[in-house]
Amino acid sequence: MITRDDCLALDAADPLARFRDAFELPDGAIYLDGNSLGRLPKAVKPRLDRLIEQEWGRDLITSWNVHDWIGLPARVGDKIAQLVGAAPGSVVSADSTSVNLFKVLAAALALRPGRSVILSDTGNFPNDLYVAQGLIQTLGGRHELRLVEPDDVAGAIDERVAVVMLTQVDYRSGRVHDMAELTRRAHGADAIALWDLCHSAGAIPVDLEGANADLAVGCGYKYLNGGPGAPAFLYVAPRLQDAVKPPLSGWMGHEAPFAFDLDYRPAAGIGRNLCGTPPVLGMAALDAALDVMLAADMAELRAKSMRLGDLFIDLVEQECGAFGFTLYSPRQAEARGSQVSIRHEHGYAAMAALIARGVIGDFRAPDMMRFGFTPLYLGYADIWDAVAVLRQIMETRAWDRPEFHRRAAVT
Amino acid sequence: MITRDDCLALDAADPLARFRDAFELPDGAIYLDGNSLGRLPKAVKPRLDRLIEQEWGRDLITSWNVHDWIGLPARVGDKIAQLVGAAPGSVVSADSTSVNLFKVLAAALALRPGRSVILSDTGNFPNDLYVAQGLIQTLGGRHELRLVEPDDVAGAIDERVAVVMLTQVDYRSGRVHDMAELTRRAHGADAIALWDLCHSAGAIPVDLEGANADLAVGCGYKYLNGGPGAPAFLYVAPRLQDAVKPPLSGWMGHEAPFAFDLDYRPAAGIGRNLCGTPPVLGMAALDAALDVMLAADMAELRAKSMRLGDLFIDLVEQECGAFGFTLYSPRQAEARGSQVSIRHEHGYAAMAALIARGVIGDFRAPDMMRFGFTPLYLGYADIWDAVAVLRQIMETRAWDRPEFHRRAAVT
Repeated sequence: MITRDDCLALDAADPLARFRDAFELPDGAIYLDGNSLGRLPKAVKPRLDRLIEQEWGRDLITSWNVHDWIGLPARVGDKIAQLVGAAPGSVVSADSTSVNLFKVLAAALALRPGRSVILSDTGNFPNDLYVAQGLIQTLGGRHELRLVEPDDVAGAIDERVAVVMLTQVDYRSGRVHDMAELTRRAHGADAIALWDLCHSAGAIPVDLEGANADLAVGCGYKYLNGGPGAPAFLYVAPRLQDAVKPPLSGWMGHEAPFAFDLDYRPAAGIGRNLCGTPPVLGMAALDAALDVMLAADMAELRAKSMRLGDLFIDLVEQECGAFGFTLYSPRQAEARGSQVSIRHEHGYAAMAALIARGVIGDFRAPDMMRFGFTPLYLGYADIWDAVAVLRQIMETRAWDRPEFHRRAAVT
Repeated sequence: MITRDDCLALDAADPLARFRDAFELPDGAIYLDGNSLGRLPKAVKPRLDRLIEQEWGRDLITSWNVHDWIGLPARVGDKIAQLVGAAPGSVVSADSTSVNLFKVLAAALALRPGRSVILSDTGNFPNDLYVAQGLIQTLGGRHELRLVEPDDVAGAIDERVAVVMLTQVDYRSGRVHDMAELTRRAHGADAIALWDLCHSAGAIPVDLEGANADLAVGCGYKYLNGGPGAPAFLYVAPRLQDAVKPPLSGWMGHEAPFAFDLDYRPAAGIGRNLCGTPPVLGMAALDAALDVMLAADMAELRAKSMRLGDLFIDLVEQECGAFGFTLYSPRQAEARGSQVSIRHEHGYAAMAALIARGVIGDFRAPDMMRFGFTPLYLGYADIWDAVAVLRQIMETRAWDRPEFHRRAAVT
């Protein structure tokens, strides 16, 4: 039997507790949706104040040099690289995850001209499949997207596969793919291994170099806390960087952007994967947010994240065992990212009722209640309190009230 | 003989003078580079304060609905539509100009499958040519980029041309293409007319509907004052919207993004051209900036912009006639955008010296000094003062000093 005092004791012994103060927590809400949009780090506001008032407002165009706006994509990329096991100079921040995925997926197909299959799984975030479908159509329909169940990926890699495109952590269940093993299998068939790290970066230890991954993309606004629609990132293994032909060949990826030659010549290295002018406001916010995450120890983050998830599952069993929830996520913490999903026939309305009472998770059709655990700003007692509210809602059948059937929060 | 008092009299009678107070002008600089990065509108800071503290910091994920973040790309697009002669629902704000150009250029080629030529001119912003080159390579080399001199475009449109891709206002000279006539010529050969409005939107009256243009893109950080790397925009004529197949088919362009179906189905209308999650911070800044521009009368803006340019040319002739400048821009104001370029063998160092004395223009190789005239926050006496500094620099041969041969401001 777990008590609230047990949770308070865990909080008192938590080596990451000090990070809570690095975030704005104005509302008393228990925010279990950092996997959709991370909380606001306190460092962001002063950084944007300075950026707007001094850099844009006063120094204007000279800030591209004086404040090194032009170097932001590489600088932010190098910070992210530390979180995903990548070497300096192998990650840049740019565009959205979708646009970056298009870039590296097109590059992957160009690296395997004799092959026609993009292999992915049905647990991938649908957006990634959409991007692949759009690319295939743009290329004239000579390729196909082969979708298998997540457990069947390894067996589906054959000599027709150009690229294995997977999201490491399932956006619904949190199930973690074995990046090293699946990359090894891909390489065994001479296929490219492309990883989407949207639900991994900042959530679990990622080792792109150790896994020998080829290409990767990821998101800035989830566990990296970069703010709504923050710039995303992409990774190209150093051994492939000069072979990659950017489909989105914009001036920021040119060898000499300000020479204004009429012909595109890709920059050496990772920089060629930049395209248009970088979104400075969003990228500065992400830059400031990353400093918070980089000050924490990833092993401690992972350990606490697993404990928070286990605690949630244990408490749902203990407090809400009578209400018919089923666990959709892996029971073993090692097999999960930093989130837990449970299913219930009234999941949609129950989630709306939770949100109305300040416990913020989200919902994924048809019946999944999804809860993200962000060790930087969540404590163990928060989990206790969240489950207590869930129990109340279930006991009072809050979903019988019509206002809880309106549209819940998105993304 | 024009005197400074003449300029002050023009300022006193200027119906747009009141807009100066809508911008932060902290520094006494004479900023003639609004064509590269617009000045900071005062409305931006409070908008971003609210966005960061209340929307992101407090309301978090619910802001996608509660504060309609999800509607920002269409809402901002509709504001831009008013500046470029487009109907509501035909413009969205998204991504960078380069990424948007890739989208609409790929869509144009798909609309003309039997044709192989992208026609553009050597005065186009090189980035646009790079994007075309990358697309051609991605599509397998079945297309070609045909480049002609700006005056030769109309004569080069033939039945092999799929799309005529032009920037309306030349980024160096400010020369304005005749959008209506060139679009008519393109249509006469059944080609698509695609316009880059980077140096037009907010600078000159644009009439996409009146010209019967097919596709367009443009920039948020120049005359629209949206801030460094602000989101860009794209236009698709209503008659083509449902025929356009987005190459960058991300979830934000899906008919039902939150249904999480495994198959992409494009949204009806302009929305299908969205791709990833919108960059909310940058888009909110652009949104606030647009309100300032929309409060001004475009006919008055254009009239003042032409007068500012003419005044600059007249004063350079009057004050600096001995120094060997040549005018690179059209002499007739009607044929120019909102900028004037002059050439000089010591142009690079002279521009660096100007910047060091607070007159901010920029430089384009090999010898072009470029000055942008933004009627919302520039007065006539500013032009007088800028030319007085230029005269001083030329008289004292400031370029003989080595510090003025270092790299000047970018973009």
